[in-house]
Amino acid sequence: MDEFKVLQVKKSVFADNDRRAEALRQTLKKHRVFLLNLMSSPGAGKTTLLSRTIETLGNQLKIGVMEADIDSDVDARTIESFGAKVIQLHTGGMCHLDADMTRQGLEALGTDDLELAILENVGNLVCPAEFDTGAVKNAMILSVPEGDDKPLKYPLMFSVCDLVLINLFDVLPYFDFDMKKCVTNIRLRNPKAKIIPVCARTGEGIDLWCDWLCSEISAWRGQ
Amino acid sequence: MDEFKVLQVKKSVFADNDRRAEALRQTLKKHRVFLLNLMSSPGAGKTTLLSRTIETLGNQLKIGVMEADIDSDVDARTIESFGAKVIQLHTGGMCHLDADMTRQGLEALGTDDLELAILENVGNLVCPAEFDTGAVKNAMILSVPEGDDKPLKYPLMFSVCDLVLINLFDVLPYFDFDMKKCVTNIRLRNPKAKIIPVCARTGEGIDLWCDWLCSEISAWRGQ
Repeated sequence: MDEFKVLQVKKSVFADNDRRAEALRQTLKKHRVFLLNLMSSPGAGKTTLLSRTIETLGNQLKIGVMEADIDSDVDARTIESFGAKVIQLHTGGMCHLDADMTRQGLEALGTDDLELAILENVGNLVCPAEFDTGAVKNAMILSVPEGDDKPLKYPLMFSVCDLVLINLFDVLPYFDFDMKKCVTNIRLRNPKAKIIPVCARTGEGIDLWCDWLCSEISAWRGQ
Repeated sequence: MDEFKVLQVKKSVFADNDRRAEALRQTLKKHRVFLLNLMSSPGAGKTTLLSRTIETLGNQLKIGVMEADIDSDVDARTIESFGAKVIQLHTGGMCHLDADMTRQGLEALGTDDLELAILENVGNLVCPAEFDTGAVKNAMILSVPEGDDKPLKYPLMFSVCDLVLINLFDVLPYFDFDMKKCVTNIRLRNPKAKIIPVCARTGEGIDLWCDWLCSEISAWRGQ
């Protein structure tokens, strides 16, 4: 399989992640590439959401995806089958991506022909929230099977995100998940975050998510 | 609410975690307290499984539970309502527990009257696998909504566990999850791990899990 690259990204020895993240953001701004950092627990639906996003926006925006995983390339294969430019990043056991690892990924992906780059971060509600990747916006997915109490247990993740997607609302009848309670819990951590319920596999709510994404890109371009 | 303690555990400055884990294991052996380390993604069903375990084994075994979370005490409240001795451990943002944090937790929980201590680790498929907590056995839960490909993406977690519980098999019809493929993927990472499908919320398979636990405790006591 040589359709997409697999890159082993190395953690930077430099402690100044915030400075590096800001520098990466400036470089991307110069090249007009909007970087979105997408985070969630393992199996919450990041790859399915991105597949739908490529289907919906692929004709309007040149999209590239970085799939970060400790091992395997299953997600990169999926994204590639939807026709987007993709690279698989292997973190070598690392539980998150920092700004320099993201920079390495973007360099290997190639951003010359891109308008939107999406980093699918390692599936983890803890560590990825601690590192600014250089993204313009942070989004996360909370899936219904995980439970409505997750904002109470993983406060930082919910507080650093500009958008919370609540995925798999089609299985609400089979889980003890209270949407109202969930929204209240998210608001405790982040009064400003946009909240959008979606069902990535059926496509419900995907239009609202894509509208959010496009309007954020427009606003950023106009700044 | 002062029925259970909430302890802020601090990461040890000592690098020799393995030595400390072994020392803790020896101490527990002397006091005949079997320590189980239970790991999973957020929301895979650890607390529900433990509630069922207390219901099933609470009359035969003196059980104590350490609930590790970054924040909140929702899980400790749940476990307490099932009548087990419980302590809430707050990790202060840390994504895992090491041997010294576990020792602090056990000390605060009090083990004099215990036969089985269970550590419900932080919900995370990455970092907790990297640290020996001093437990006699490691168990993990993979829930059906997470997907059958998780052993490919989180290799270390599956390779360090003696037991993999596949939870929520009652929702199999609603998810694209292939049990056979999942078992094959687990076997790639760990040819020896015991695999038990359960449904913690309905109680199915809980007898098999409790049988495994009791036989491991017996074998360890006889060593």
